Amino acid sequence: MAHESKLKKIHLAARALRLSTTETRNRVLLKAAEFLLEEEETILKANIKDLKKLPSDVSPAFKDRLTLNTQRLSAMAESLRQVADLPDPLDEEGEKRVLRNGLQLKKVRAPLGVIFMIFESRPNVAIEAFSMGFKSGNAMILRGGKESQHTVAVLYKILQTALKQVGLPADTFWGITDPDRKIVNQLLQQKEFIDVVVPRGGEGLINFVVNNSLIPIIKNDRGLCHVYVHDGADLAMAVNIIVNAKTQRPAVCNSMETMLIHSSVAEQLIPMLYQQMQSFNVKWFGDAKTVKILKGSKNVKKASEKNWNTEYLDQIVNCKVVNSVEEAIAHIDKYGSKHSESIVTADASIAQKFQREIDAAVVYWNASTRFTDGFEFGLGGELGISTQKLHVRGPVGLQALTNERWIATGTGQVR
Amino acid sequence: MAHESKLKKIHLAARALRLSTTETRNRVLLKAAEFLLEEEETILKANIKDLKKLPSDVSPAFKDRLTLNTQRLSAMAESLRQVADLPDPLDEEGEKRVLRNGLQLKKVRAPLGVIFMIFESRPNVAIEAFSMGFKSGNAMILRGGKESQHTVAVLYKILQTALKQVGLPADTFWGITDPDRKIVNQLLQQKEFIDVVVPRGGEGLINFVVNNSLIPIIKNDRGLCHVYVHDGADLAMAVNIIVNAKTQRPAVCNSMETMLIHSSVAEQLIPMLYQQMQSFNVKWFGDAKTVKILKGSKNVKKASEKNWNTEYLDQIVNCKVVNSVEEAIAHIDKYGSKHSESIVTADASIAQKFQREIDAAVVYWNASTRFTDGFEFGLGGELGISTQKLHVRGPVGLQALTNERWIATGTGQVR
Repeated sequence: MAHESKLKKIHLAARALRLSTTETRNRVLLKAAEFLLEEEETILKANIKDLKKLPSDVSPAFKDRLTLNTQRLSAMAESLRQVADLPDPLDEEGEKRVLRNGLQLKKVRAPLGVIFMIFESRPNVAIEAFSMGFKSGNAMILRGGKESQHTVAVLYKILQTALKQVGLPADTFWGITDPDRKIVNQLLQQKEFIDVVVPRGGEGLINFVVNNSLIPIIKNDRGLCHVYVHDGADLAMAVNIIVNAKTQRPAVCNSMETMLIHSSVAEQLIPMLYQQMQSFNVKWFGDAKTVKILKGSKNVKKASEKNWNTEYLDQIVNCKVVNSVEEAIAHIDKYGSKHSESIVTADASIAQKFQREIDAAVVYWNASTRFTDGFEFGLGGELGISTQKLHVRGPVGLQALTNERWIATGTGQVR
Repeated sequence: MAHESKLKKIHLAARALRLSTTETRNRVLLKAAEFLLEEEETILKANIKDLKKLPSDVSPAFKDRLTLNTQRLSAMAESLRQVADLPDPLDEEGEKRVLRNGLQLKKVRAPLGVIFMIFESRPNVAIEAFSMGFKSGNAMILRGGKESQHTVAVLYKILQTALKQVGLPADTFWGITDPDRKIVNQLLQQKEFIDVVVPRGGEGLINFVVNNSLIPIIKNDRGLCHVYVHDGADLAMAVNIIVNAKTQRPAVCNSMETMLIHSSVAEQLIPMLYQQMQSFNVKWFGDAKTVKILKGSKNVKKASEKNWNTEYLDQIVNCKVVNSVEEAIAHIDKYGSKHSESIVTADASIAQKFQREIDAAVVYWNASTRFTDGFEFGLGGELGISTQKLHVRGPVGLQALTNERWIATGTGQVR
C-alpha cells in the first residue's frame, strides 16, 4: 500500500493528539506565528522563486493569490494568534441522557482524526488550514498547488519546527511537496488511515476528488448565489444589497451571480441597478424582458442557458424578471449551488416561505450574500464553505472539524 | 442520464415535503400502519412466494430475517405508530448569533433531501427506513435485497397508497423492485438528485457502495467490539458484562468479538468466563497465555492474526491477555471498527483515559456493548449504526437524517 508506513505514523500521532491539552496546541500555533515573522526573508525568497517560475499566461488574480509580502506574512502570523485565542471545541459536552437502567450517556466532542486538505496555490491557505485543523486536535496532511511548492516547503518546515519545539511528534503534520499529482490519487484510496478529505479549489479539483476518493469529503464547492427582489421591496435597499453582493469582491464564492427581479418592480429597479453597476463596468446578461427594459444600453446581452449556470467570479451578472416568489424559488432550485441565497422584501410571510423552501447553506432576508464567511459569522475563521448536505453547511469552522461521540458510564448494566 | 425524469420528480417531491407539516407526515405513517394490518393476507402470500424461491443453501438466520408473520407485521405497524409519536426534528432552532451590524443568524434543522437506502432481504427494514427518513422530511428511495422482492413490492404499494390518501405526491417515495443490481450503480452516480446514500448490509455491499458512489454516504459498517477488563476490576461484574456482550444476541453488530484481560486477573477470570460461556457452547480463540490458562479445555484454539480481525456474529470469541490499558487501547486501535468498546474497571482515571483515547462511536465504562442501539439510547429507533467520523457516530436516529443550515435576517446589511 502506498505510503503505508508514513500513514501509520500519522495515525499514531493523531492518537497522541487526542490526549494533548489546549495549551500545548496553542503553544504550537504561537511558535509558528513567531517563526513566520523570523523567517520572513527565507519565505519571501522562496516565494520569488515560485513567482519567477509562473507561466506568463497565468491571470493577475492567480499571481496575486500566490504572492507573499511583509504585510501578508504578518496577517498570517496574526491569524495563527487569533486561532490560538479561539475556544477549544474539544471535550465540549452535548446532549446527556440517563437510561432507565441508570446508564449515563453523554455526547462529547472529539477530533475527526487525520484530515487531508488539498488546496490551490495560495500559501496563506496552508497556514489557515493547519491552524484550524490542528487547533481542533487533528493530524493534518496538506498538499498545495504545485506553483507554490517552494513557498509552502518553507512554511511546512516552520510548522514542523514549531511542533518539535513544543514536543509533539513531527508526524502530527505532513506537508507534501511532491509536485506529482499521483500522490493525491494514492492518498484518496487510504480510507483506513485518512478520516476526511477537504478539497478546496476549482471545479476540476473538486470533481477529481469526488470521483476518486474512497474517503468522506467536506466539499468546498462553487457558489452560484442569487438575490431575489420581491414585489413592494424597498428599492434603495435592493440596489444597495445587489450592488454589494455583485461588486464588492466578485472573485469570491459568496458574491452574487444572478438577480431575480419581480415584474412589478422591474421597470423601475433594473435601470437603477444597471446605472449603479456601470461604475464597476459590470457586464450584464439578461432575459428578454431585462434586455427590453435596458434597450440601447451597451453593456447588456441576451442570456443563454449557459449564463444562468455560470459562476463568473467576475464583474459580470445575470438578470431575470420573474412573476412570483415561486418562480424565483424554482429558478434558484434549478441553478443554485446550495451556497447563499437572498430575498429582499418587506413581506415577512414571503421571506419565511423563501427561507424555508430554498435549500442552501445560508438563506438571507434583506442582507447581502457576502456575509457567508467564517470570520463574519464569528466562527473565528473557516476552512472553506460547505455546500454539501452532511456534517456541516456553510462556513467550516473549528466545530466542523470535530464530531460528537457517545461516552457511556455504567455500574455493570447488561441487556 | 439514467432515470433522470424519475429523479427530477423525486427532487420536486422532496421540495414539497420541506413545506409539509408534522401532522401530515404523521398521518401518512399512521395510514401505512393501518394498511399493513389490513393487507396482512396479501403481504404474507407474497412473503411465502419469496420464501419458496430461496435457494436451499441459505442460512436459517437469513431465512428468518426474510420471514414475516402476524406477530411481526403487528410489530412493524407498531413501529410506524411509534415513529409518528416521536417529536419532529425539523425546524428545531439551534445556535443563534447577532452580528455587530445587527444581522441575526440562527441554525435551523432541515431535511437532507433525497435519501437512497440499500438494504438486505429484511422486509421490516423497508418500513423502518421509510418511517425514519420520511418523518424527518426526506423523500426516500428504497432498494431491498432481491430475495425479498415480492414482499417489499406489496409494502411499497402500501406506502404509496398511504401517501396518496394523505394527498402527498407519489414521487415522495420510490420503492425499487427491479432485481437487476445495475440500477444501484446507476443511482450511485446521480449526485445532482440524490443527497445521501445509506447502505445497510454485509461488507460486500458496503464496499461496493464506497467504491462506486459519487454521493455522500452514511455507512452502517461492521461492529468488531471489544471489552477490556483492567487490573482490580470487579470480576463478577466483568463476567456478567462479557457474557452478555457475547452471547445475548451474537448476530448483531454491537455484540462483542474480543475480550482483552489484564494479566493480573487473567488466571482467575479466564476460567470463570470460559465456564459461563459453555452453556452457550461458545468457541474460543485465545492468545498463547489464554490457551495455557485453559489447557485441556476442548473449546479453545490458538488465535491467528485473522481471528483478531473477524466479526464472527456468532457464538465464537477471541481472548487476549494484556499487560496494561495502553496495550488494550493499542489492540483496539488496530482491530476495532470504531463501533462500541467497553472497559471494566474500578479505577476512574483508567476509565477516563480509555474513554478519551479510544476512537469509537460509543465507549462504555462498566456496561455491555449491547446498548448501542437507537431504541436503547432513547432515539426512538435507528436507520443503522454509523461507524464513520462525519455527520453522525453511533445510532442513526431522526436527527441524523436532517442537517442544520443558517437562516439570516437583516435590515439591509451589506459588507
